Amino acid sequence: MANPSGHTSRDGYQWTPDTGLKAGVPCLGVIQPQSTVVSKDTVYDVAVIGAGYTGLTAIRDLTTTGHSTLLIEARDRIGGRSWSSNIDGYPFEMGGTWVHWTQPFIWRELFRYNLLGNLEVSMSQSGGINKCAVTMSKDKPTIFLSHEEEDIISESGLKKLVNVDGKLGRTVIPWPHDALRNKEAVAIYDKMSLKDRIQQIEHDLTPLEKNMLEGFLSITCGGQWEDSSFFEMLRWWALANWDYRDFIEMGLTYKLKCGQSALQRCLFDEAHGSGRLSHSFSTPVASVHDKGELVEVTGRDGTVFKAKRVICTVPLNVLHSIQFTPALLPLKTQASVEGHANHVVKCHVEVAKPELRSLGSFNYPDGKLTYTFGDGTTPAGNTHLVAFGSSLPGVHLQAEEDINATLEAWKQLLPGTEDKDLKRVVFHNWHNDEFARGAWEWFKPNQVSRYLDALREKQGNVWFGSADWAMGWRGFLDGGIEDGQRVAKEVADNLKASKTVRVTTRL
Amino acid sequence: MANPSGHTSRDGYQWTPDTGLKAGVPCLGVIQPQSTVVSKDTVYDVAVIGAGYTGLTAIRDLTTTGHSTLLIEARDRIGGRSWSSNIDGYPFEMGGTWVHWTQPFIWRELFRYNLLGNLEVSMSQSGGINKCAVTMSKDKPTIFLSHEEEDIISESGLKKLVNVDGKLGRTVIPWPHDALRNKEAVAIYDKMSLKDRIQQIEHDLTPLEKNMLEGFLSITCGGQWEDSSFFEMLRWWALANWDYRDFIEMGLTYKLKCGQSALQRCLFDEAHGSGRLSHSFSTPVASVHDKGELVEVTGRDGTVFKAKRVICTVPLNVLHSIQFTPALLPLKTQASVEGHANHVVKCHVEVAKPELRSLGSFNYPDGKLTYTFGDGTTPAGNTHLVAFGSSLPGVHLQAEEDINATLEAWKQLLPGTEDKDLKRVVFHNWHNDEFARGAWEWFKPNQVSRYLDALREKQGNVWFGSADWAMGWRGFLDGGIEDGQRVAKEVADNLKASKTVRVTTRL
Repeated sequence: MANPSGHTSRDGYQWTPDTGLKAGVPCLGVIQPQSTVVSKDTVYDVAVIGAGYTGLTAIRDLTTTGHSTLLIEARDRIGGRSWSSNIDGYPFEMGGTWVHWTQPFIWRELFRYNLLGNLEVSMSQSGGINKCAVTMSKDKPTIFLSHEEEDIISESGLKKLVNVDGKLGRTVIPWPHDALRNKEAVAIYDKMSLKDRIQQIEHDLTPLEKNMLEGFLSITCGGQWEDSSFFEMLRWWALANWDYRDFIEMGLTYKLKCGQSALQRCLFDEAHGSGRLSHSFSTPVASVHDKGELVEVTGRDGTVFKAKRVICTVPLNVLHSIQFTPALLPLKTQASVEGHANHVVKCHVEVAKPELRSLGSFNYPDGKLTYTFGDGTTPAGNTHLVAFGSSLPGVHLQAEEDINATLEAWKQLLPGTEDKDLKRVVFHNWHNDEFARGAWEWFKPNQVSRYLDALREKQGNVWFGSADWAMGWRGFLDGGIEDGQRVAKEVADNLKASKTVRVTTRL
Repeated sequence: MANPSGHTSRDGYQWTPDTGLKAGVPCLGVIQPQSTVVSKDTVYDVAVIGAGYTGLTAIRDLTTTGHSTLLIEARDRIGGRSWSSNIDGYPFEMGGTWVHWTQPFIWRELFRYNLLGNLEVSMSQSGGINKCAVTMSKDKPTIFLSHEEEDIISESGLKKLVNVDGKLGRTVIPWPHDALRNKEAVAIYDKMSLKDRIQQIEHDLTPLEKNMLEGFLSITCGGQWEDSSFFEMLRWWALANWDYRDFIEMGLTYKLKCGQSALQRCLFDEAHGSGRLSHSFSTPVASVHDKGELVEVTGRDGTVFKAKRVICTVPLNVLHSIQFTPALLPLKTQASVEGHANHVVKCHVEVAKPELRSLGSFNYPDGKLTYTFGDGTTPAGNTHLVAFGSSLPGVHLQAEEDINATLEAWKQLLPGTEDKDLKRVVFHNWHNDEFARGAWEWFKPNQVSRYLDALREKQGNVWFGSADWAMGWRGFLDGGIEDGQRVAKEVADNLKASKTVRVTTRL
């Protein structure tokens, strides 16, 4: 590849002292040319809307099994809510980042593309400051804990949260990938918000335990307490083996040296290499019209694409923005209009303080950035830290709207850091992103019970796939791949069955 | 299907009081007709030798991606070293049985074929006897432990075994699916046998702890102490999250109600449904001749099959019985002639004692059956227990050679059981099986270092796939699927590249 950092995407923001704030960062996932559509009259076997992991898995599985496939994507790049901006060849992960061998679907992809040796550990717990800083209020001095103390307090708080049954939630969700099997548990805990549950246990939490639990939870759900289903926390905990260490290791530990966009390219390139893929990037979809014999997908610019079947992978929070004919199932529309709860913004900093590589830091509830930890060392030798913004009213981070406030939030989070130390800030505001309107899925109370089945339903010739309604690691990269392969197989089976019927009819 | 139990396989044995010992049991995996090969002149894209999970994954992946594929299998059934005998619709698992969501490759298959709801738990720890019986010697009375006591003692012994670094082996194999990354650890621990390691720690084990550890280990490795690599134990432990509970849950807990043969049918049927699969069962292969432009595979009956590429999934311990031209890599031959260490025999009993459903029982070192636990309730309402035979000299279980000794071994293992209680015994002698010559892989000392890389190497137009040399859950069902998809993709990529070259040459 001529440019090892890829082309520049419109997505994301970068600030440096020299350039100030600029929209757009380089990314291996920007595809050139943006369109390979030759004829408007082609009727594809399948049109896939959206090039996140769900869409990429679907196009890879469909093209390699012989289906002519069109990928339609609103952005200029693949990856959806997961992508890496390659700056000087160093990837900053703008969305979904961490993977683990207990996440079966993405692990298969890493294996398939020979990337196991590419994994590395984000956090460091040796050398430098090697502490966890906790700022419980802007009026109080920051407390410094050893990472061992941090783990003891965090584990204690989390266990009190999930221990609804004296078995750390194990009897509630004994089958983590089949969480709806225990219907009683869904009924009880999906009604509860995180706020409800915190109120049940707060008498049993020390002030520090409560502060760190709330800080950590707020970036886990990325939403308001009263808006976030407690069931989703119990489910994530069950997926993480009902264990604190595993929760951290499976959610925040192992990442790709090459960046998520490089893995995504493997899927895209395999599909492309089949000779059966056409694509149209920078093509937001306005409407999907299922006419029975074929489906017409119309872009906002009026371009019409035709396919026998459609897979729509548009995220929950923006699904309602597309006009479907026949109309979306009412429960799908309702779920999308309500939206899930997560509006967190992820933000990276490059800072000229090597000792911060081993820092963890909480600033809750007053900080616009709630939690950070050392995530790597950049080519310039600076420390890279990754942070999650607050979603609390009043301090909800909108990083690009006031970059000085963002820089100020970083300084509050990084002990002893001054303006001159801040070398770069990189982020993606998922909340303001018109093609996402939120980060990873975190359902609101009652949404699992009310909507999950409906969200997974196909309508006529249109299938719906997304990490937002996956069954296992829902809201994770793994969930996107899980649901992508599900809908791809369902569509392939359906196309095959319809061919069989036709042949039979002719006999 | 007309017969819900399937046809009768030549494999396996069944004993009942009425029939005595008979070879052959019904199995959903017996394929009829046994051959669909029409013309001897057909040159297939790929011939796959062996219909275990590796072969089944390969034929599914290859046929669905457009390759004409021939499956050649020595037995009359699919499944290889994993299959279930369906007796009155109840599956007894004759080989590989248990699965877990942390086994990525088989988990994907369960998901793909909608079988998550089909999982159930083997052991029971409520009602009935609810004890673990330990018979440390034929001269001593059996000790009865609660399952909690059993777990405490077993966990303590296992942790002493693996705790070579004060971190329960975690620093030795920090990347369980990429265990060779830490080359120093491989070098040190692959040289050691289980005997070496037990000698290092035995001063620190109580007699009961030592007995239960050795009994459990002996059915884990299925071989002699001095023949079994300690590295393979550390690796399995790392895959099991460096944790006792997880070790049990990931290795011995969750199984399919429908039986492994039903899952295997899903892979076979999908390949068959593609219209691109031919098969020839009951066709042991005598030789494989790579002639460059094509490969000839010759059966013992002289039938010659032709294919552009071959995938050989024949197990390690019998690979050397096939004549390859050009010859097998010397390291492959040497590894196969040495063979891996595991020669365990798995044996089921149906017993008219419902209270034994919650029994666990050890009889080591004197018993011909070393360890059993309750595994289900049969359609007749009897208790089904699964046991692993001893591989120790003098008591190595050869269940069919002396069925009375086998029944006697069962009575020794099941407290208070008399002849009249034994209603059925079902087993497969993997040691005597000419197409396996052993059970799941357990390498001997130094074999990982010497042979693993060579075993995974292709030669000319012939690829080699097997759970025996998988990288992650080696020796497990999951490893078979892992390696099946690896070789299928490598072959598909190779065929594609060779086509591209030819087209380019013509231009």
